[in-house]
Amino acid sequence: MDDSRWFVEPAPGAGCSIGLRISRRIEQVKSPFQTIEIFETADFGHLMAIDGCIMLTERDHFIYHEMLVHPALLTHPRPGRIVIVGGGDCGTLTEVLKHPEVESAVQVEIDQAVTALARRHFPELARAGDDPRAVLHYEDALLWIERAPPASIDVLCIDSTDPVGPAKGLFETDFYATCLSRLKPDGILALQSESPFLYPDLVKEIHGRLAQAGFRERLLLPFPQPTYPSGVWSVSLASSLTPLGTFRMPTPSLIPAPRYYSAGLHRGLIEGLPELFQKLL
Amino acid sequence: MDDSRWFVEPAPGAGCSIGLRISRRIEQVKSPFQTIEIFETADFGHLMAIDGCIMLTERDHFIYHEMLVHPALLTHPRPGRIVIVGGGDCGTLTEVLKHPEVESAVQVEIDQAVTALARRHFPELARAGDDPRAVLHYEDALLWIERAPPASIDVLCIDSTDPVGPAKGLFETDFYATCLSRLKPDGILALQSESPFLYPDLVKEIHGRLAQAGFRERLLLPFPQPTYPSGVWSVSLASSLTPLGTFRMPTPSLIPAPRYYSAGLHRGLIEGLPELFQKLL
Repeated sequence: MDDSRWFVEPAPGAGCSIGLRISRRIEQVKSPFQTIEIFETADFGHLMAIDGCIMLTERDHFIYHEMLVHPALLTHPRPGRIVIVGGGDCGTLTEVLKHPEVESAVQVEIDQAVTALARRHFPELARAGDDPRAVLHYEDALLWIERAPPASIDVLCIDSTDPVGPAKGLFETDFYATCLSRLKPDGILALQSESPFLYPDLVKEIHGRLAQAGFRERLLLPFPQPTYPSGVWSVSLASSLTPLGTFRMPTPSLIPAPRYYSAGLHRGLIEGLPELFQKLL
Repeated sequence: MDDSRWFVEPAPGAGCSIGLRISRRIEQVKSPFQTIEIFETADFGHLMAIDGCIMLTERDHFIYHEMLVHPALLTHPRPGRIVIVGGGDCGTLTEVLKHPEVESAVQVEIDQAVTALARRHFPELARAGDDPRAVLHYEDALLWIERAPPASIDVLCIDSTDPVGPAKGLFETDFYATCLSRLKPDGILALQSESPFLYPDLVKEIHGRLAQAGFRERLLLPFPQPTYPSGVWSVSLASSLTPLGTFRMPTPSLIPAPRYYSAGLHRGLIEGLPELFQKLL
Protein backbone atom coordinates (compact mmCIF):
# COMPACT_ATOMS: atom_id res chain seq x y z
CA MET A 1 0.00 0.00 0.00
CA ASP A 2 1.39 3.35 -1.08
CA ASP A 3 0.36 5.48 1.90
CA SER A 4 0.29 8.72 -0.05
CA ARG A 5 -2.65 7.41 -2.10
CA TRP A 6 -4.84 6.49 0.84
CA PHE A 7 -6.95 8.66 3.09
CA VAL A 8 -6.87 6.87 6.44
CA GLU A 9 -9.07 7.75 9.40
CA PRO A 10 -8.19 6.05 12.68
CA ALA A 11 -11.21 5.93 15.00
CA PRO A 12 -10.21 7.78 18.18
CA GLY A 13 -9.52 5.37 21.03
CA ALA A 14 -11.11 2.45 19.22
CA GLY A 15 -8.18 0.62 17.65
CA CYS A 16 -9.53 0.51 14.11
CA SER A 17 -9.28 2.57 10.98
CA ILE A 18 -10.91 3.01 7.60
CA GLY A 19 -8.98 3.81 4.47
CA LEU A 20 -10.14 5.05 1.09
CA ARG A 21 -7.90 4.99 -1.95
CA ILE A 22 -7.66 8.49 -3.38
CA SER A 23 -6.49 9.75 -6.73
CA ARG A 24 -6.08 13.38 -5.68
CA ARG A 25 -7.03 16.10 -3.25
CA ILE A 26 -9.27 18.50 -5.12
CA GLU A 27 -9.57 21.29 -2.59
CA GLN A 28 -8.74 22.24 0.98
CA VAL A 29 -10.35 25.07 2.93
CA LYS A 30 -9.45 26.22 6.42
CA SER A 31 -12.60 27.88 7.70
CA PRO A 32 -12.84 29.70 11.06
CA PHE A 33 -14.20 26.42 12.49
CA GLN A 34 -12.37 23.53 10.88
CA THR A 35 -10.32 22.20 7.97
CA ILE A 36 -12.45 20.85 5.14
CA GLU A 37 -10.94 18.73 2.38
CA ILE A 38 -12.39 17.34 -0.82
CA PHE A 39 -10.76 14.29 -2.41
CA GLU A 40 -11.39 12.27 -5.51
CA THR A 41 -11.40 8.62 -4.41
CA ALA A 42 -10.76 5.61 -6.62
CA ASP A 43 -14.06 3.85 -5.94
CA PHE A 44 -16.25 6.00 -3.68
CA GLY A 45 -16.61 9.17 -5.76
CA HIS A 46 -15.97 12.50 -4.08
CA LEU A 47 -15.06 12.48 -0.41
CA MET A 48 -15.53 15.34 2.05
CA ALA A 49 -13.41 15.17 5.20
CA ILE A 50 -13.50 17.58 8.13
CA ASP A 51 -10.50 17.72 10.45
CA GLY A 52 -9.38 14.34 9.14
CA CYS A 53 -12.74 12.60 9.62
CA ILE A 54 -14.77 11.26 6.71
CA MET A 55 -18.04 13.23 6.49
CA LEU A 56 -19.50 11.77 3.32
CA THR A 57 -18.66 10.06 0.07
CA GLU A 58 -20.77 10.10 -3.05
CA ARG A 59 -21.11 6.33 -2.95
CA ASP A 60 -22.56 5.68 0.48
CA HIS A 61 -23.89 8.93 1.99
CA PHE A 62 -27.46 8.01 1.04
CA ILE A 63 -27.69 5.37 3.76
CA TYR A 64 -26.96 7.85 6.53
CA HIS A 65 -29.15 10.60 5.11
CA GLU A 66 -32.10 8.29 4.48
CA MET A 67 -31.90 6.85 7.99
CA LEU A 68 -31.63 10.26 9.66
CA VAL A 69 -34.72 11.52 7.83
CA HIS A 70 -37.24 8.86 6.78
CA PRO A 71 -37.87 7.06 10.10
CA ALA A 72 -38.52 10.39 11.85
CA LEU A 73 -40.65 11.97 9.12
CA LEU A 74 -42.71 8.78 8.63
CA THR A 75 -43.27 8.48 12.39
CA HIS A 76 -44.48 12.07 12.79
CA PRO A 77 -48.17 12.35 11.86
CA ARG A 78 -47.79 15.66 9.93
CA PRO A 79 -44.15 16.69 9.48
CA GLY A 80 -44.73 20.24 8.23
CA ARG A 81 -41.99 22.34 9.79
CA ILE A 82 -38.52 20.75 9.85
CA VAL A 83 -35.30 22.12 11.30
CA ILE A 84 -31.89 20.64 10.50
CA VAL A 85 -29.01 21.36 12.86
CA GLY A 86 -25.71 21.08 11.01
CA GLY A 87 -26.06 19.17 7.75
CA GLY A 88 -24.20 21.78 5.71
CA ASP A 89 -23.68 19.35 2.83
CA CYS A 90 -27.48 19.49 2.30
CA GLY A 91 -27.81 15.68 2.12
CA THR A 92 -30.30 15.63 4.99
CA LEU A 93 -32.18 18.56 3.46
CA THR A 94 -32.39 16.62 0.18
CA GLU A 95 -34.14 13.68 1.87
CA VAL A 96 -36.39 15.94 3.96
CA LEU A 97 -37.67 17.75 0.87
CA LYS A 98 -38.75 14.45 -0.72
CA HIS A 99 -41.62 14.35 1.81
CA PRO A 100 -44.63 16.17 0.34
CA GLU A 101 -45.94 17.04 3.84
CA VAL A 102 -42.95 19.31 4.45
CA GLU A 103 -43.88 23.00 4.31
CA SER A 104 -40.58 24.47 5.40
CA ALA A 105 -37.11 23.11 6.08
CA VAL A 106 -34.67 25.34 7.91
CA GLN A 107 -31.01 24.31 7.93
CA VAL A 108 -28.77 25.86 10.59
CA GLU A 109 -25.13 25.16 9.79
CA ILE A 110 -22.33 26.91 11.64
CA ASP A 111 -19.86 26.77 8.76
CA GLN A 112 -20.83 28.32 5.43
CA ALA A 113 -17.69 26.80 3.86
CA VAL A 114 -19.19 23.31 4.16
CA THR A 115 -22.16 24.28 2.02
CA ALA A 116 -19.98 26.22 -0.43
CA LEU A 117 -17.81 23.13 -0.93
CA ALA A 118 -20.87 20.88 -1.25
CA ARG A 119 -22.19 23.21 -3.92
CA ARG A 120 -19.02 22.66 -5.95
CA HIS A 121 -18.41 18.97 -5.31
CA PHE A 122 -21.77 17.43 -4.30
CA PRO A 123 -24.08 19.57 -6.47
CA GLU A 124 -26.79 16.86 -6.48
CA LEU A 125 -27.18 17.54 -2.74
CA ALA A 126 -26.55 21.27 -2.52
CA ARG A 127 -29.24 22.04 -5.07
CA ALA A 128 -31.78 21.21 -2.35
CA GLY A 129 -30.95 24.68 -1.01
CA ASP A 130 -32.71 26.16 -4.04
CA ASP A 131 -36.06 24.55 -3.14
CA PRO A 132 -38.57 27.31 -2.22
CA ARG A 133 -39.34 25.47 1.04
CA ALA A 134 -35.66 25.55 2.13
CA VAL A 135 -34.11 28.29 4.29
CA LEU A 136 -30.39 28.17 4.97
CA HIS A 137 -28.94 29.93 8.02
CA TYR A 138 -25.25 30.04 8.86
CA GLU A 139 -24.81 30.40 12.59
CA ASP A 140 -24.30 28.45 15.80
CA ALA A 141 -27.32 26.17 16.10
CA LEU A 142 -27.11 26.39 19.91
CA LEU A 143 -27.93 30.11 19.68
CA TRP A 144 -30.47 29.69 16.89
CA ILE A 145 -32.41 27.07 18.84
CA GLU A 146 -32.37 29.30 21.95
CA ARG A 147 -34.10 32.05 19.95
CA ALA A 148 -36.59 29.76 18.17
CA PRO A 149 -40.18 30.17 19.39
CA PRO A 150 -41.36 27.46 21.82
CA ALA A 151 -43.40 24.61 20.35
CA SER A 152 -42.68 25.65 16.78
CA ILE A 153 -40.96 22.61 15.18
CA ASP A 154 -42.39 19.26 14.06
CA VAL A 155 -39.14 17.37 13.42
CA LEU A 156 -35.66 18.47 14.45
CA CYS A 157 -32.80 16.59 12.78
CA ILE A 158 -29.36 16.87 14.37
CA ASP A 159 -26.91 16.12 11.59
CA SER A 160 -23.75 16.92 13.52
CA THR A 161 -20.11 16.00 13.42
CA ASP A 162 -18.67 13.95 16.30
CA PRO A 163 -18.91 15.24 19.89
CA VAL A 164 -15.56 17.02 19.74
CA GLY A 165 -14.87 20.52 18.43
CA PRO A 166 -17.77 22.71 17.26
CA ALA A 167 -20.39 19.95 17.70
CA LYS A 168 -19.64 19.13 21.35
CA GLY A 169 -22.54 21.20 22.70
CA LEU A 170 -24.98 19.36 20.45
CA PHE A 171 -24.62 16.25 22.62
CA GLU A 172 -25.39 17.92 25.98
CA THR A 173 -28.50 17.43 28.13
CA ASP A 174 -29.16 21.19 28.20
CA PHE A 175 -29.25 21.33 24.42
CA TYR A 176 -31.61 18.34 24.26
CA ALA A 177 -33.90 20.05 26.79
CA THR A 178 -33.95 23.21 24.67
CA CYS A 179 -34.75 21.11 21.61
CA LEU A 180 -37.66 19.50 23.45
CA SER A 181 -39.13 22.88 24.37
CA ARG A 182 -38.83 24.17 20.77
CA LEU A 183 -40.53 21.05 19.39
CA LYS A 184 -44.33 21.01 19.29
CA PRO A 185 -45.79 18.60 21.88
CA ASP A 186 -45.95 15.80 19.29
CA GLY A 187 -42.58 16.72 17.80
CA ILE A 188 -39.73 14.31 17.13
CA LEU A 189 -35.99 14.73 17.55
CA ALA A 190 -33.77 12.69 15.20
CA LEU A 191 -30.04 12.71 15.77
CA GLN A 192 -26.98 10.95 14.46
CA SER A 193 -25.88 8.97 17.50
CA GLU A 194 -22.45 7.59 16.53
CA SER A 195 -21.41 3.91 16.32
CA PRO A 196 -23.24 1.67 18.78
CA PHE A 197 -20.69 -1.07 18.06
CA LEU A 198 -17.55 1.00 18.57
CA TYR A 199 -18.76 3.47 21.20
CA PRO A 200 -21.47 1.69 23.23
CA ASP A 201 -20.83 3.87 26.29
CA LEU A 202 -21.32 7.04 24.27
CA VAL A 203 -24.61 5.79 22.83
CA LYS A 204 -25.74 4.82 26.32
CA GLU A 205 -24.82 8.31 27.52
CA ILE A 206 -26.71 9.99 24.67
CA HIS A 207 -29.85 8.00 25.47
CA GLY A 208 -29.45 8.74 29.16
CA ARG A 209 -29.21 12.45 28.45
CA LEU A 210 -32.23 12.36 26.13
CA ALA A 211 -34.23 10.73 28.94
CA GLN A 212 -32.94 13.27 31.45
CA ALA A 213 -33.96 16.10 29.11
CA GLY A 214 -37.54 14.83 29.15
CA PHE A 215 -37.80 12.68 26.03
CA ARG A 216 -39.97 9.83 27.27
CA GLU A 217 -39.83 7.81 24.03
CA ARG A 218 -36.54 6.79 22.50
CA LEU A 219 -35.53 4.52 19.65
CA LEU A 220 -32.10 3.42 18.41
CA LEU A 221 -31.78 2.62 14.71
CA PRO A 222 -28.43 1.09 13.72
CA PHE A 223 -27.47 0.78 10.06
CA PRO A 224 -24.39 -0.01 7.99
CA GLN A 225 -22.26 2.94 6.95
CA PRO A 226 -19.21 1.67 5.05
CA THR A 227 -17.14 4.84 5.38
CA TYR A 228 -17.78 5.57 9.07
CA PRO A 229 -15.64 3.91 11.77
CA SER A 230 -16.55 0.21 12.21
CA GLY A 231 -19.06 0.35 9.33
CA VAL A 232 -21.98 0.45 11.80
CA TRP A 233 -23.61 3.76 12.67
CA SER A 234 -26.86 4.81 14.29
CA VAL A 235 -29.62 7.35 14.34
CA SER A 236 -31.75 7.87 17.44
CA LEU A 237 -35.31 9.15 17.58
CA ALA A 238 -36.74 10.77 20.68
CA SER A 239 -40.13 12.25 21.50
CA SER A 240 -42.22 13.26 24.44
CA LEU A 241 -45.71 12.21 23.31
CA THR A 242 -45.54 10.63 19.86
CA PRO A 243 -45.10 6.85 20.05
CA LEU A 244 -42.04 5.75 18.09
CA GLY A 245 -43.16 2.17 17.52
CA THR A 246 -45.49 2.85 14.58
CA PHE A 247 -45.06 4.85 11.42
CA ARG A 248 -46.73 5.70 8.12
CA MET A 249 -45.79 3.64 5.06
CA PRO A 250 -43.55 5.47 2.60
CA THR A 251 -45.60 6.48 -0.43
CA PRO A 252 -44.47 6.56 -4.07
CA SER A 253 -44.19 10.33 -3.61
CA LEU A 254 -40.76 9.68 -2.05
CA ILE A 255 -38.87 10.19 -5.31
CA PRO A 256 -36.37 8.84 -6.02
CA ALA A 257 -37.36 5.92 -3.80
CA PRO A 258 -35.07 5.19 -0.84
CA ARG A 259 -32.22 2.84 -1.69
CA TYR A 260 -31.50 1.71 1.86
CA TYR A 261 -34.49 2.66 4.03
CA SER A 262 -37.44 0.28 3.94
CA ALA A 263 -40.55 -0.01 6.07
CA GLY A 264 -39.73 -3.70 6.66
CA LEU A 265 -36.30 -2.92 8.07
CA HIS A 266 -37.68 -0.04 10.12
CA ARG A 267 -40.26 -2.36 11.68
CA GLY A 268 -37.58 -5.05 12.08
CA LEU A 269 -35.44 -2.68 14.16
CA ILE A 270 -38.42 -1.65 16.31
CA GLU A 271 -39.38 -5.27 16.97
CA GLY A 272 -35.98 -6.92 16.94
CA LEU A 273 -33.16 -4.56 17.86
CA PRO A 274 -30.17 -6.88 18.42
CA GLU A 275 -29.48 -7.61 22.07
CA LEU A 276 -26.01 -6.12 21.53
CA PHE A 277 -27.67 -2.71 21.03
CA GLN A 278 -30.79 -3.24 23.16
CA LYS A 279 -28.68 -3.36 26.28
CA LEU A 280 -27.48 0.20 25.66
CA LEU A 281 -30.97 1.62 26.19
CA MET B 1 -0.21 6.36 12.63
CA ASP B 2 2.77 4.08 13.24
CA ASP B 3 2.29 1.56 10.43
CA SER B 4 4.10 -1.24 12.19
CA ARG B 5 1.36 -1.32 14.84
CA TRP B 6 -1.55 -1.68 12.44
CA PHE B 7 -2.82 -4.69 10.56
CA VAL B 8 -4.25 -3.23 7.35
CA GLU B 9 -6.34 -5.18 4.84
CA PRO B 10 -7.02 -3.42 1.54
CA ALA B 11 -10.15 -4.83 -0.11
CA PRO B 12 -9.06 -6.16 -3.53
CA GLY B 13 -10.16 -3.85 -6.33
CA ALA B 14 -12.53 -1.94 -4.08
CA GLY B 15 -10.52 1.12 -3.06
CA CYS B 16 -11.04 0.78 0.68
CA SER B 17 -9.24 -0.77 3.60
CA ILE B 18 -9.77 -1.76 7.19
CA GLY B 19 -7.11 -1.40 9.83
CA LEU B 20 -6.85 -2.86 13.32
CA ARG B 21 -4.33 -1.63 15.85
CA ILE B 22 -2.20 -4.54 17.05
CA SER B 23 0.05 -4.94 20.02
CA ARG B 24 1.89 -8.02 18.71
CA ARG B 25 1.83 -10.98 16.39
CA ILE B 26 1.40 -14.05 18.54
CA GLU B 27 1.92 -16.76 15.97
CA GLN B 28 2.37 -17.39 12.26
CA VAL B 29 1.90 -20.75 10.53
CA LYS B 30 2.52 -21.51 6.87
CA SER B 31 0.31 -24.50 6.16
CA PRO B 32 0.29 -26.38 2.84
CA PHE B 33 -2.68 -24.22 1.88
CA GLN B 34 -2.15 -20.71 3.24
CA THR B 35 -0.42 -18.46 5.75
CA ILE B 36 -2.32 -18.09 9.00
CA GLU B 37 -1.45 -15.40 11.52
CA ILE B 38 -2.72 -14.68 15.01
CA PHE B 39 -2.40 -11.15 16.41
CA GLU B 40 -3.27 -9.51 19.66
CA THR B 41 -5.17 -6.34 18.78
CA ALA B 42 -5.57 -3.27 20.96
CA ASP B 43 -9.39 -3.29 21.05
CA PHE B 44 -10.73 -6.32 19.16
CA GLY B 45 -9.16 -9.19 21.12
CA HIS B 46 -7.39 -11.92 19.18
CA LEU B 47 -7.34 -11.65 15.39
CA MET B 48 -6.91 -14.52 12.94
CA ALA B 49 -5.80 -13.53 9.44
CA ILE B 50 -5.35 -15.86 6.46
CA ASP B 51 -3.15 -14.70 3.59
CA GLY B 52 -3.48 -11.12 4.83
CA CYS B 53 -7.28 -11.17 5.12
CA ILE B 54 -9.09 -10.80 8.44
CA MET B 55 -10.96 -14.02 9.21
CA LEU B 56 -12.25 -13.26 12.66
CA THR B 57 -11.67 -11.21 15.76
CA GLU B 58 -12.85 -12.07 19.24
CA ARG B 59 -14.91 -8.89 19.39
CA ASP B 60 -17.15 -9.16 16.35
CA HIS B 61 -17.09 -12.73 14.98
CA PHE B 62 -20.39 -13.54 16.68
CA ILE B 63 -22.37 -11.44 14.19
CA TYR B 64 -21.13 -13.45 11.20
CA HIS B 65 -21.47 -16.82 12.90
CA GLU B 66 -24.95 -16.12 14.22
CA MET B 67 -26.15 -14.92 10.82
CA LEU B 68 -24.67 -17.90 8.96
CA VAL B 69 -26.37 -20.35 11.31
CA HIS B 70 -29.58 -19.13 12.97
CA PRO B 71 -31.62 -17.99 9.94
CA ALA B 72 -30.98 -21.33 8.18
CA LEU B 73 -31.54 -23.57 11.20
CA LEU B 74 -34.69 -21.70 12.26
CA THR B 75 -36.07 -21.88 8.71
CA HIS B 76 -35.53 -25.63 8.36
CA PRO B 77 -38.40 -27.56 10.01
CA ARG B 78 -36.15 -30.20 11.64
CA PRO B 79 -32.43 -29.40 11.31
CA GLY B 80 -31.03 -32.75 12.46
CA ARG B 81 -28.00 -33.39 10.28
CA ILE B 82 -25.77 -30.38 9.62
CA VAL B 83 -22.65 -30.15 7.48
CA ILE B 84 -20.24 -27.21 7.65
CA VAL B 85 -17.89 -26.63 4.74
CA GLY B 86 -14.80 -24.76 5.89
CA GLY B 87 -15.34 -23.08 9.24
CA GLY B 88 -12.12 -24.43 10.74
CA ASP B 89 -12.22 -21.90 13.58
CA CYS B 90 -15.33 -23.76 14.86
CA GLY B 91 -17.35 -20.53 15.29
CA THR B 92 -20.09 -21.79 12.99
CA LEU B 93 -20.05 -25.18 14.70
CA THR B 94 -20.48 -23.40 18.05
CA GLU B 95 -23.68 -21.70 16.90
CA VAL B 96 -24.99 -24.86 15.19
CA LEU B 97 -24.64 -26.90 18.38
CA LYS B 98 -26.79 -24.41 20.31
CA HIS B 99 -29.81 -25.77 18.43
CA PRO B 100 -31.28 -28.69 20.36
CA GLU B 101 -32.70 -30.24 17.15
CA VAL B 102 -29.18 -30.91 15.85
CA GLU B 103 -28.23 -34.59 16.00
CA SER B 104 -24.92 -34.39 14.18
CA ALA B 105 -22.71 -31.61 12.90
CA VAL B 106 -19.92 -32.53 10.50
CA GLN B 107 -17.25 -29.92 9.81
CA VAL B 108 -15.14 -30.38 6.68
CA GLU B 109 -12.15 -28.04 6.78
CA ILE B 110 -9.29 -28.39 4.31
CA ASP B 111 -6.67 -26.96 6.64
CA GLN B 112 -6.11 -28.62 10.01
CA ALA B 113 -3.80 -25.75 10.99
CA VAL B 114 -6.78 -23.37 11.19
CA THR B 115 -8.45 -25.51 13.83
CA ALA B 116 -5.18 -26.09 15.68
CA LEU B 117 -4.65 -22.33 15.91
CA ALA B 118 -8.27 -21.73 16.94
CA ARG B 119 -7.77 -24.30 19.70
CA ARG B 120 -4.90 -22.23 21.08
CA HIS B 121 -6.24 -18.71 20.52
CA PHE B 122 -10.03 -18.97 20.28
CA PRO B 123 -10.62 -21.82 22.77
CA GLU B 124 -14.21 -20.68 23.45
CA LEU B 125 -14.98 -21.64 19.84
CA ALA B 126 -12.75 -24.66 19.30
CA ARG B 127 -14.18 -26.47 22.30
CA ALA B 128 -17.31 -27.05 20.17
CA GLY B 129 -15.24 -29.78 18.53
CA ASP B 130 -15.48 -31.76 21.77
CA ASP B 131 -19.28 -31.95 21.64
CA PRO B 132 -20.34 -35.57 21.10
CA ARG B 133 -22.52 -34.48 18.16
CA ALA B 134 -19.54 -32.91 16.35
CA VAL B 135 -17.36 -34.70 13.79
CA LEU B 136 -14.32 -32.89 12.37
CA HIS B 137 -12.88 -33.93 9.01
CA TYR B 138 -9.81 -32.37 7.46
CA GLU B 139 -10.01 -32.67 3.70
CA ASP B 140 -11.11 -30.86 0.55
CA ALA B 141 -14.84 -30.27 0.98
CA LEU B 142 -15.32 -30.56 -2.80
CA LEU B 143 -14.27 -34.22 -2.59
CA TRP B 144 -16.09 -34.90 0.67
CA ILE B 145 -19.36 -33.57 -0.72
CA GLU B 146 -18.93 -35.68 -3.89
CA ARG B 147 -18.72 -38.81 -1.72
CA ALA B 148 -21.59 -37.85 0.62
CA PRO B 149 -24.73 -39.96 0.13
CA PRO B 150 -27.49 -38.25 -1.87
CA ALA B 151 -30.28 -36.59 0.11
CA SER B 152 -28.46 -36.98 3.43
CA ILE B 153 -28.08 -33.42 4.79
CA ASP B 154 -30.63 -31.06 6.35
CA VAL B 155 -28.59 -27.86 6.41
CA LEU B 156 -25.29 -27.26 4.66
CA CYS B 157 -23.36 -24.17 5.82
CA ILE B 158 -20.59 -22.92 3.56
CA ASP B 159 -18.26 -20.97 5.82
CA SER B 160 -15.54 -20.30 3.26
CA THR B 161 -12.81 -17.79 2.67
CA ASP B 162 -13.12 -15.45 -0.34
CA PRO B 163 -13.44 -16.87 -3.87
CA VAL B 164 -9.70 -16.89 -4.48
CA GLY B 165 -7.20 -19.60 -3.49
CA PRO B 166 -8.45 -22.81 -1.90
CA ALA B 167 -12.08 -21.63 -1.67
CA LYS B 168 -12.56 -20.73 -5.35
CA GLY B 169 -14.34 -23.99 -6.19
CA LEU B 170 -16.86 -23.39 -3.40
CA PHE B 171 -18.41 -20.57 -5.45
CA GLU B 172 -18.99 -22.57 -8.67
CA THR B 173 -22.32 -23.70 -10.12
CA ASP B 174 -21.17 -27.34 -10.24
CA PHE B 175 -20.43 -27.30 -6.53
CA TYR B 176 -23.81 -25.76 -5.74
CA ALA B 177 -25.49 -28.47 -7.86
CA THR B 178 -23.64 -31.19 -5.93
CA CYS B 179 -24.70 -29.53 -2.66
CA LEU B 180 -28.32 -29.56 -3.81
CA SER B 181 -28.21 -33.28 -4.57
CA ARG B 182 -26.64 -34.11 -1.19
CA LEU B 183 -29.27 -32.06 0.66
CA LYS B 184 -32.55 -33.77 1.54
CA PRO B 185 -35.45 -32.46 -0.58
CA ASP B 186 -36.37 -29.94 2.10
CA GLY B 187 -32.72 -29.09 2.83
CA ILE B 188 -31.26 -25.60 3.05
CA LEU B 189 -27.93 -24.26 1.88
CA ALA B 190 -26.50 -21.31 3.84
CA LEU B 191 -23.39 -19.62 2.53
CA GLN B 192 -21.30 -16.59 3.31
CA SER B 193 -21.89 -14.47 0.22
CA GLU B 194 -19.38 -11.60 0.54
CA SER B 195 -20.14 -7.87 0.71
CA PRO B 196 -23.25 -6.84 -1.22
CA PHE B 197 -22.18 -3.22 -0.88
CA LEU B 198 -18.61 -3.62 -2.11
CA TYR B 199 -19.04 -6.49 -4.57
CA PRO B 200 -22.60 -6.27 -5.92
CA ASP B 201 -21.65 -8.05 -9.15
CA LEU B 202 -20.21 -11.00 -7.25
CA VAL B 203 -23.34 -11.34 -5.12
CA LYS B 204 -25.46 -11.18 -8.27
CA GLU B 205 -23.29 -13.90 -9.79
CA ILE B 206 -23.56 -16.12 -6.71
CA HIS B 207 -27.35 -15.87 -6.75
CA GLY B 208 -27.41 -16.52 -10.50
CA ARG B 209 -25.32 -19.64 -10.02
CA LEU B 210 -27.51 -20.85 -7.15
CA ALA B 211 -30.56 -20.49 -9.42
CA GLN B 212 -28.76 -22.24 -12.25
CA ALA B 213 -27.86 -25.10 -9.91
CA GLY B 214 -31.55 -25.65 -9.17
CA PHE B 215 -32.13 -23.71 -5.95
CA ARG B 216 -35.58 -22.27 -6.58
CA GLU B 217 -35.77 -20.24 -3.35
CA ARG B 218 -33.09 -17.74 -2.47
CA LEU B 219 -32.70 -15.12 0.24
CA LEU B 220 -30.01 -12.49 0.82
CA LEU B 221 -29.36 -11.46 4.42
CA PRO B 222 -27.00 -8.49 4.80
CA PHE B 223 -25.57 -7.60 8.20
CA PRO B 224 -22.88 -5.35 9.67
CA GLN B 225 -19.46 -6.92 10.11
CA PRO B 226 -17.05 -4.29 11.44
CA THR B 227 -13.84 -6.16 10.53
CA TYR B 228 -14.79 -7.28 7.01
CA PRO B 229 -14.26 -4.95 4.04
CA SER B 230 -16.86 -2.13 3.95
CA GLY B 231 -18.37 -3.27 7.26
CA VAL B 232 -21.33 -4.83 5.42
CA TRP B 233 -21.39 -8.56 4.73
CA SER B 234 -24.01 -11.10 3.73
CA VAL B 235 -25.24 -14.64 4.11
CA SER B 236 -27.45 -16.22 1.47
CA LEU B 237 -29.95 -19.01 1.99
CA ALA B 238 -31.04 -21.28 -0.85
CA SER B 239 -33.44 -24.19 -1.03
CA SER B 240 -35.37 -26.19 -3.55
CA LEU B 241 -38.63 -26.85 -1.69
CA THR B 242 -38.52 -25.19 1.72
CA PRO B 243 -39.95 -21.66 1.64
CA LEU B 244 -37.43 -19.16 3.02
CA GLY B 245 -39.96 -16.49 3.98
CA THR B 246 -41.06 -18.03 7.28
CA PHE B 247 -39.12 -19.44 10.20
CA ARG B 248 -39.49 -20.80 13.71
CA MET B 249 -39.04 -18.41 16.60
CA PRO B 250 -35.77 -18.86 18.49
CA THR B 251 -36.47 -20.55 21.82
CA PRO B 252 -34.73 -19.91 25.14
CA SER B 253 -32.81 -23.12 24.44
CA LEU B 254 -30.48 -21.05 22.27
CA ILE B 255 -27.95 -20.45 25.05
CA PRO B 256 -26.28 -18.07 25.31
CA ALA B 257 -28.93 -16.04 23.48
CA PRO B 258 -27.89 -14.49 20.17
CA ARG B 259 -26.35 -11.05 20.54
CA TYR B 260 -26.98 -9.88 16.99
CA TYR B 261 -29.54 -12.22 15.42
CA SER B 262 -33.17 -11.49 16.22
CA ALA B 263 -36.42 -12.78 14.77
CA GLY B 264 -37.54 -9.18 14.21
CA LEU B 265 -34.51 -8.33 12.10
CA HIS B 266 -34.76 -11.64 10.22
CA ARG B 267 -38.38 -10.84 9.33
CA GLY B 268 -37.41 -7.25 8.53
CA LEU B 269 -34.88 -8.45 5.96
CA ILE B 270 -37.40 -10.85 4.40
CA GLU B 271 -40.04 -8.14 4.14
CA GLY B 272 -37.88 -5.10 3.55
CA LEU B 273 -34.54 -5.91 1.98
CA PRO B 274 -33.14 -2.50 0.95
CA GLU B 275 -33.62 -1.71 -2.73
CA LEU B 276 -29.82 -1.39 -2.98
CA PHE B 277 -29.56 -5.15 -2.33
CA GLN B 278 -32.93 -6.24 -3.75
CA LYS B 279 -31.78 -5.31 -7.22
CA LEU B 280 -28.95 -7.88 -7.02
CA LEU B 281 -31.41 -10.78 -6.93
